[in-house]
Amino acid sequence: MRLAEAVTAQTPLVQRLLDGVARIGADPPGITRDAYGPGENQAQALIAEAGQALGMQAGTDAGANLILTWPARDPSGPPILIGSHLDSVVQGGNFDGAAGVIAGIGAVAALRAAGIAPRRDIQVLALRCEEAVWFGLGLIGSRCLLGRLPPGALELRHARTGLTLAESIAACGGNPDRLRANTPLRDPRGMGAYLEAHIEQAPQLVEAGAPLAVCLANPGNLRHPFIRIAGEDAHTGLPHRFRRDAALAGADLSLALERLWLAEEAAGRPMAVTIGRFFTPTARHSLTAVSGGFEMSLDLRAYNAAHLAALEGELHRIVAEVAARRGVTIELGERSAAAPGPMDPALIEGLSAAAARCGQPAPRLNSPGSHDANNFAASGVPTGMLLVRNRNGSHNPFEAMDTPDLMAAIGVLADWIAGLSPAPG
Amino acid sequence: MRLAEAVTAQTPLVQRLLDGVARIGADPPGITRDAYGPGENQAQALIAEAGQALGMQAGTDAGANLILTWPARDPSGPPILIGSHLDSVVQGGNFDGAAGVIAGIGAVAALRAAGIAPRRDIQVLALRCEEAVWFGLGLIGSRCLLGRLPPGALELRHARTGLTLAESIAACGGNPDRLRANTPLRDPRGMGAYLEAHIEQAPQLVEAGAPLAVCLANPGNLRHPFIRIAGEDAHTGLPHRFRRDAALAGADLSLALERLWLAEEAAGRPMAVTIGRFFTPTARHSLTAVSGGFEMSLDLRAYNAAHLAALEGELHRIVAEVAARRGVTIELGERSAAAPGPMDPALIEGLSAAAARCGQPAPRLNSPGSHDANNFAASGVPTGMLLVRNRNGSHNPFEAMDTPDLMAAIGVLADWIAGLSPAPG
Repeated sequence: MRLAEAVTAQTPLVQRLLDGVARIGADPPGITRDAYGPGENQAQALIAEAGQALGMQAGTDAGANLILTWPARDPSGPPILIGSHLDSVVQGGNFDGAAGVIAGIGAVAALRAAGIAPRRDIQVLALRCEEAVWFGLGLIGSRCLLGRLPPGALELRHARTGLTLAESIAACGGNPDRLRANTPLRDPRGMGAYLEAHIEQAPQLVEAGAPLAVCLANPGNLRHPFIRIAGEDAHTGLPHRFRRDAALAGADLSLALERLWLAEEAAGRPMAVTIGRFFTPTARHSLTAVSGGFEMSLDLRAYNAAHLAALEGELHRIVAEVAARRGVTIELGERSAAAPGPMDPALIEGLSAAAARCGQPAPRLNSPGSHDANNFAASGVPTGMLLVRNRNGSHNPFEAMDTPDLMAAIGVLADWIAGLSPAPG
Repeated sequence: MRLAEAVTAQTPLVQRLLDGVARIGADPPGITRDAYGPGENQAQALIAEAGQALGMQAGTDAGANLILTWPARDPSGPPILIGSHLDSVVQGGNFDGAAGVIAGIGAVAALRAAGIAPRRDIQVLALRCEEAVWFGLGLIGSRCLLGRLPPGALELRHARTGLTLAESIAACGGNPDRLRANTPLRDPRGMGAYLEAHIEQAPQLVEAGAPLAVCLANPGNLRHPFIRIAGEDAHTGLPHRFRRDAALAGADLSLALERLWLAEEAAGRPMAVTIGRFFTPTARHSLTAVSGGFEMSLDLRAYNAAHLAALEGELHRIVAEVAARRGVTIELGERSAAAPGPMDPALIEGLSAAAARCGQPAPRLNSPGSHDANNFAASGVPTGMLLVRNRNGSHNPFEAMDTPDLMAAIGVLADWIAGLSPAPG
């Protein structure tokens, strides 16, 4: 069977796996696959079973990541990793993460069906807890694998279970004690490449009418998940000059950051600001009280490290200005950061060439989102990504990726791998 | 005993009642006396017992308000009402409301101790559910008494119990069927005066160094307790031009209303804007999702009806502008309004004269807050208020009224009543 036909022939398998993970995460109207919980665990089991059915060896590492290996008979170089994640946000969609893991399975299935034996070990990775919603810190599985956990990460607590990250990993069969060293579980120099297919989280491919894109770079981020503003609770009768309104300070801060974003974009420096949590504490909600407390989160993204550092300086300047003007204190609190992830130039070219051979138009785009690929790139692993067309954005119940678009990405991955391999024998 | 001495002699009684309602509402670090619940009910019982110990007759009306009557032996005119409320906000302070009811008891006790028999019936009212926190509608007890409930009010649901207002009133021994007519339970033309002592909810008396003030007017308000903004949930990777961020629309709306406030004040038109509830829905909180939903409350106050109406027009203009610019819908939702409450000129003079006789400095101030007095004024009852010095504002655990300041207000009330009465016989 020609490879292109072999790819198309995997459509039912891919659809079955997409439907399977959707059933596991069903939480109408969306999808919730909780990290280190039943959602992620059951999805791992489904993927492991599918890999084993293809003759892959299933294993896990100290971070409880799933690793499915299709061994080369006579390896000619370090393994090729294809990964993504199986967890979702709360009431998110089905495709953010899971589509990339399933793409790895689909590519292996297609290569096997075409009779192509890999020259290198091919490993499909289901990395744990990519979404920051569970611990206020994202990309955890790849951080564990590559020794990139920030200090204190193992003591963070799961938003739903209250267990620490260490306890959560142990409960899933991982080994948190090994992780305390925070050194790579495997030497990244022994990884030939890390490839990831991921739905696009913006509508640029929908606008462009293209099923997929070759990614140029992932943004790095600076995150403060739990910013707290403290002013003074007061009665609605308090004159303006006496008020220390924490909610309005939050409004000031958010709009100042938005103005910064628009100014930077206008100056040709792409970035993004997202404030997902933005709230007066509900326990003391009153129609007739000025709120002395306010909480918010901040996710700030940019594509190079110097720009991110400059933006962090701007953030501190804005915070100081708002705090002084409103008479409130603003504690940025916990800070996490992820380095920007430029893709490997040779992989950008290689994936573009594979797309051309497959007859797929594939524009090159900056990724709007950060991904596990950032950690591999930061650890020196040659990293490449394909972005798959998706309507309605991500992290919401209305994500909409069409399976033929994912099959196109699988075709490009399989073609690129085939290019590493001897012809079928 | 001279009246001034008789007032001072009531300090232990007043302190006992203040401490008693504090114990009933204890909810560290604050005070919660829930309307139509154990907090308000137990406080009513304590006040009823204190009134009965002074020879007052205890009764309730169809709105479950408590009415304690000290009958004149030979009434020469319509009764004098002294009232306030016993409920508090959640984790509020001890004095907002309760101090005014206790002041009524204290004045009656002082007059009796001074041997002064009233020429009119004196009635102390503990009006139900003044705080808007319980039903998103305030001043409910006086609305019931005076036939001023807005349409649908009896079907509103209690924030804590989920019972409708009708069910809540019935559970406290009231008669919601009588209230459906929404006509006064007593003819307001038969009320000689309504007097209310209330802590000041701003620090103007602290600044002025005066224990009490004679109130000039209470503000009316326009309230939208449950404003909902609907944009679109989206991933943090969504470019700015595609975003419909409901939280930032809320920030825009709140700051535009604050600018309106400052401009009106600068133009000599006093008002206030309070946004107590201001939040992204917690159930879907995510660090990495643009929030498609936002909720907020609005309490807008001003001192005359024409100004309030003009401000409502401004509100609608601002809402339309923000909604169009952000691509969101803004539903103002439920609306409630309270008419501004100007105090009776003769009572302003009378209370000022009484204060002067008591040797109390008593500036004249606009009240920062709305009170049950608004409903009496709006129903044509001659209405007067005393504001009592209070540190740290109101609707928070740190309200701080000193008992001697309340005793000063009790002295003024008693002196004013004594002025209506024949000399002790």
